[in-house]
Parts: sequence; C-alpha cells; structure tokens
Amino acid sequence: MSAWLLPDHIADVLPSEARHIEDLRRSLLEAARRYGYELVIPPLLEHLESLLTGTGEALDLQTFKLVDQLSGRMLGLRADTTPQVARIDAHLLNRRGITRLCYCGPVVHTRAGGAHGSREPLQFGAEIYGHAGLEADLEVLELALDALRAAGLSRLGVDLGDVRIVDAVLDGCPLPPARIARLHAALAAKDAAALAALAAELPPAVRDGLLALPELYGDAAVLAEARRRLPGGERLQRALDDLAWLADRLHERDPLVSVTFDLADLRGYAYYTGVRFSLFGAGGAERQEIARGGRYDEVGAVFGRRRPAAGFSLDLKQLVRLAPAPALRPAIRAPWRDDGALRAAIAQLRAAGETVVCVLPGHEHEVDEFACDRTLVERDGAWVVQPLAAQAS
Amino acid sequence: MSAWLLPDHIADVLPSEARHIEDLRRSLLEAARRYGYELVIPPLLEHLESLLTGTGEALDLQTFKLVDQLSGRMLGLRADTTPQVARIDAHLLNRRGITRLCYCGPVVHTRAGGAHGSREPLQFGAEIYGHAGLEADLEVLELALDALRAAGLSRLGVDLGDVRIVDAVLDGCPLPPARIARLHAALAAKDAAALAALAAELPPAVRDGLLALPELYGDAAVLAEARRRLPGGERLQRALDDLAWLADRLHERDPLVSVTFDLADLRGYAYYTGVRFSLFGAGGAERQEIARGGRYDEVGAVFGRRRPAAGFSLDLKQLVRLAPAPALRPAIRAPWRDDGALRAAIAQLRAAGETVVCVLPGHEHEVDEFACDRTLVERDGAWVVQPLAAQAS
Repeated sequence: MSAWLLPDHIADVLPSEARHIEDLRRSLLEAARRYGYELVIPPLLEHLESLLTGTGEALDLQTFKLVDQLSGRMLGLRADTTPQVARIDAHLLNRRGITRLCYCGPVVHTRAGGAHGSREPLQFGAEIYGHAGLEADLEVLELALDALRAAGLSRLGVDLGDVRIVDAVLDGCPLPPARIARLHAALAAKDAAALAALAAELPPAVRDGLLALPELYGDAAVLAEARRRLPGGERLQRALDDLAWLADRLHERDPLVSVTFDLADLRGYAYYTGVRFSLFGAGGAERQEIARGGRYDEVGAVFGRRRPAAGFSLDLKQLVRLAPAPALRPAIRAPWRDDGALRAAIAQLRAAGETVVCVLPGHEHEVDEFACDRTLVERDGAWVVQPLAAQAS
Repeated sequence: MSAWLLPDHIADVLPSEARHIEDLRRSLLEAARRYGYELVIPPLLEHLESLLTGTGEALDLQTFKLVDQLSGRMLGLRADTTPQVARIDAHLLNRRGITRLCYCGPVVHTRAGGAHGSREPLQFGAEIYGHAGLEADLEVLELALDALRAAGLSRLGVDLGDVRIVDAVLDGCPLPPARIARLHAALAAKDAAALAALAAELPPAVRDGLLALPELYGDAAVLAEARRRLPGGERLQRALDDLAWLADRLHERDPLVSVTFDLADLRGYAYYTGVRFSLFGAGGAERQEIARGGRYDEVGAVFGRRRPAAGFSLDLKQLVRLAPAPALRPAIRAPWRDDGALRAAIAQLRAAGETVVCVLPGHEHEVDEFACDRTLVERDGAWVVQPLAAQAS
C-alpha cells in the first residue's frame, strides 16, 4: 500500500475548500455570538462511559474505542459533541439559569453516513440549557436559520416534527423497549412493510395511526389531517399546537422560508424528547438536509442534572459544498532581495492586511499559486505597488 | 467513577478561554495568509504507516493506535501535523515550485509533555516546501514572530541552533545509529554525565567538542567560541555562518527581538535536518518556549518526493496562557415577548453585529452570564437601546 493513501471516507481538505470552510466557521461562530451563545471546546477523547451514557446504540456503534496508557481505561473518540456540552452545562458551569453554548470541531465516525459521506465531519452546533418553554426551541431554530443565511445560503426550508407524536399515538399500548426501538426504526426509514408487520397486533386505532404517520408529510394541512387521523388525545394535540406555533413565528419572521411538517421523522440519535427540526438548502435540483436539531431534555441526566435543552448541529464539510464560495482576495507578488527597504515595504503592506507572496531566488519563473494582481517594483529608489498587467507590458 | 470525570491531562476549554483561543486562531491564520500560506485541513485519522514513516520513535510512542472497522488496518490518531502536510505537498498538490501551507487543528498524544501539559494540544503551524536556501528559513522565522506579535505577545526571544553542528562535530566518527540517538538524547537533556560516558571512547577533539556543546549557549559570542572550540571543518563553519546571517536579518527587522544561540538544542521530533529555532515569550518571571521550528528536508521522502522544507508549529492551548486576553465586547439584554416589533428590533441589532441576549420568560431575575451594558426597552411604542444603569434607576 502506498503511504499517501488515506483510509476510506477520510480525506484531506485542500486550500480553496479549506479557506471556504474557515470563512464559514467564522460566520457560524459569529452568528452564535450575536445570539449570546458562548464557545466551548470539549476534548476529542473522553472516558467511553461519559460519551455514551443515555445516547443509544447508534452512537456506540459510531464511536472509535482506544485504551488510555495512563489509566488502562477505555476511551472513546467523540462521534457527537452534544453529550459533552451537556456534561459541561451540568457539571462544569453548573449555572442556575439559562446557559447558551456553541462549539465547532471535528467528530469521528467508525462508519460513513452515506456513499460519499465523511468519517470526519466538522461539527458546528449551538445549544440552550435551562428553559423548557417553546421560546428556546424557537431561538435555536432562528439561530440555525440565521447561521445558514450568514453562510450565504438562500431558499431555506424547515421540516418540523415531534417525538411526542409517536409517543402519544402509542399511549396506552405498553410495549417492550426493543419493540418500540424497531417501530422507531421502521418510521425513520419510512419502511411501510416493516411498520405494518410491527403494528399488526396493536389495537386498530393505534395501528391505523402508526400506518398513517409516514403519509403525514407536507404543508400546514398535515397538522389538520393529523388531528383527524391520529389517536393520542391531549398529548398529541399539544405537540401539534407547538408545531403550529413555531411555524407561525418562523413565517412571520421570514415568509420566504418554506416550513413543512414530517410527523414520522425519527432519524438521528436517540436523545430527542420533543420538537425536532431539519433545515434544508437548495443544492442543485433537489433539496438537501444541512442541519438537524430539536429538544433533548434528558441528555444531562447522567451527569446529575436533568435540565431542559434544545439545540442543533451541522457538518461544515457538507455545508461547504452548498454554500457559495467567497471571492478570492488578490495578492501582491514581491521579489526577494537582501534589502532592508524592500523588506520594510513588504512588512508595511502585510501590516495593512495585504497578502504579499515573496518570489524566492531561483523561483522567478514559477506560476503563482495565489491570484496575484499586483507586484512590488523599485521606482526611483522606492518600492511601489503596480498592477501586474502594467509591469508585464 | 463519575461520568463527568475526564482522563488525566485532558480538559474542557470553557467560555472565556475558548473565546480567546478562537481570537488567537484567527490572528495566527491571518498572519499566515498575509505571507501567502494556504490553509489545509488534514484528517485526524490516517493509516499508521503514513503518520509515522521516517519520523522516529518519539512520535510513535506519542501516537494512539486504533483499528479501522472498514479495512481491518491499523490507524493512528495524529500526534503531529507536519508529516501530513509533507504528504499533501508531495502527493496531492505535487507542485513544481514553492508551496506554502498552514494548518490549525487538534493533535492527540498518548502522554502529556509535562506535569501540566495537555494530551490534546491545538496545533497551529506553517510550512514552506521547495526552497533549499536560507531565505525560506528566514521567512518562516519572521512569520512565526509576526504571528506571535499578532497574538499580542511582546518581549519575544529567538533561540537558534542547527542539527548540522552536532553532525559536523561527529564527522569522521562512524557510530551506529543507536549510539547517535543516545548522544542526541543526552545533548537534548543537557545531561553532562551521560554525555561524558557516551563520548569517553571518541577521539579527543570530537569528545571535547561534544562536551563543549551544552556550554555553547548565549549571545553572538557563542558563534565565535564555537568556531574556536569545535571540530567539524567547513560544514561546521557553514552552519555557523547560516545562524549568523539569520540573526543579523532578525535584528535588522526588529532590534527588540533578543536572538540567542543554543548549539546543543536537539529537542523535539527527529525530522529536523538543518537550522532549528525556538521562540520565547515573557510569561511571568521566566521566559517560556512558545513555538518551535526549523528545516526538515527529508519529511516528504517517504511519499516519493524529497523536497526542501522549513516550518514551525505551536500549541494554542499553551499560547493562550501567555497572550493578553482581549477586551470583552459588551452585550445588549432584551426581554422576550411574542411581539413582532420586538423581534424585528432584535434581528436588526444582531444584523449590525451586536450580541443580543434574550431573557426568556421566567428567567428575569437570573444573573447575566454575558457582560450586558445596555438593554432594549419600549419607549413611546418603539424599541430602543438604553444604557443598563439608566434603566435600573
């Protein structure tokens, strides 16, 4: 095997894309800062039990394990940042009131999300702890939309769902957890055959409700249809009321954002407990999911603090493919001479923010990798900047 | 064990320090951009043989190993970024001329560097490939100094050394590689006893030269003393000439930077082949090493391209402890109401770059985590910003 071959679904990010990712990173962190979200940097490695408690089997399978030589204990390479941020909220900050946190760093997965997915997403996210009301759900949704706007995306769409809807439909049918997990998986995959088999022996109203869920996808008419077709009583009605309230606020803020509903959406990690949302951007012909979030009130419980929580996350390596690339900032080419005046002129240009690329001795005939549109030339004993075309003529 | 306990030498970075690190990250990347260094983002995980080839035992011991479930092959978690950047230069970019690259991301070590060291440094670095002349060494040195100035550090110091000096002293004494490695280790540790034992059977001139090296530390007088006391012929003289040339250029550019020499310095990874430097900042009473760099012409050889290379790297988690903290940008506190005019006023302030922290219902009496100096109040039907003191009165 050649030493330069990388593992499958692992890739270098080369200059033009890396520069764009860095720009996006700053835009997203600035958006979060404007909402009052404070940056934290949790570690890549933790004790395995801290990373996995209460987060379900999917995260366990995604997590690389390794042995700590210092303690002999098992460590995990983080596959998701949310359990870490919940730990920070619960234990390190331990504030009584609301805590708003954001983060941006790599996570590592044992297996890729799809055929073209990366095993090293660059995860950005924002989370609010300490408020159980819908105002928190709305705030993270609006922050997520603002962050994507700051990244240059237009034609944004929001899909709303709620974990409580399936719970309400199943209310009164005590099922073993493994069966519920299989039902959730069938709903997440919109697998009608598996769903029919799993629901076959349930009471008719529950069965019909479950089978109806994958069809309850679309605009606001879906909510009215759900009120008619689903069992679930007051719990169901409250979840649907919440979704309608959120959709109204989003529409009021920006009528151009298309809000749709997907009442069977249960994809992603198992820690969600209420409202869930997906954000879409227009990438080519079809819409692509860019960010996912919602409410997960139980995540901090294992760290001794059962706090209300809502948030979202996205992968910058995916976002960069959909966001419009920023314009290149052109550079200045400078010759190299052992000349204090030249070196002072270069230092001055750099101090003013310019990119100055020195052509080192012997490299005068190489192609610039940077887009140089100006050059530094000596004119009457002084170093001055000239357009490159003028110098070439 | 409590789930919130982290492994030894692994820590969360909490908001105030994380914000400072993010500011430093931007300053350093901007400094590199002004010199024409392009950002790359190599992966955290690679096949072990790509990470370790030609880099010596120290890096191997520092590298966490894990198994790739997709291929069954052994992967390493990167402990240093330089071999990855050399791979990118050699294989992916494969440019004929000069390539300038920079990076900023976490590396992970199996063991901490010191009693208070982190096993997860945040490594920033810049590297220039393709130029064998001293101009490249000078460029990375000046970039490193400018980057530290951009981070707010003053009273900077540079220690210069050169791997070729020890090589020249040992010239004509064919020693087995293991013996040379032990000599290097004794010199790096300035362990006079070990050095004396290892040098005992060598020719007197070589032995005296080796024993003199740890004393050859200080200002420019060291170079003259080395010319007198060390064997090594023309190779030695050339290395000393190079150090003198670099010191003169650094002094010319900024007479406030103190340049010293440490001719026995061999610390760090084994890939250095020429000039080496350490950068120091004043942290409290004693000076602390912040960055380290030099020339490492052989690093890309294993990837099929033996290119000249020079560069430096530093740990942002260490730098943040020495750099002056930036001033807090004060925020605006806003009430929460289901009121379109209020929400529009908040959106407008945020679009102008302000941090607006919403006080969600029921949290009116909590202490602000942000330093809010203004508040949004309704006055004659409009939402206006007021100083906080005025509102409290």
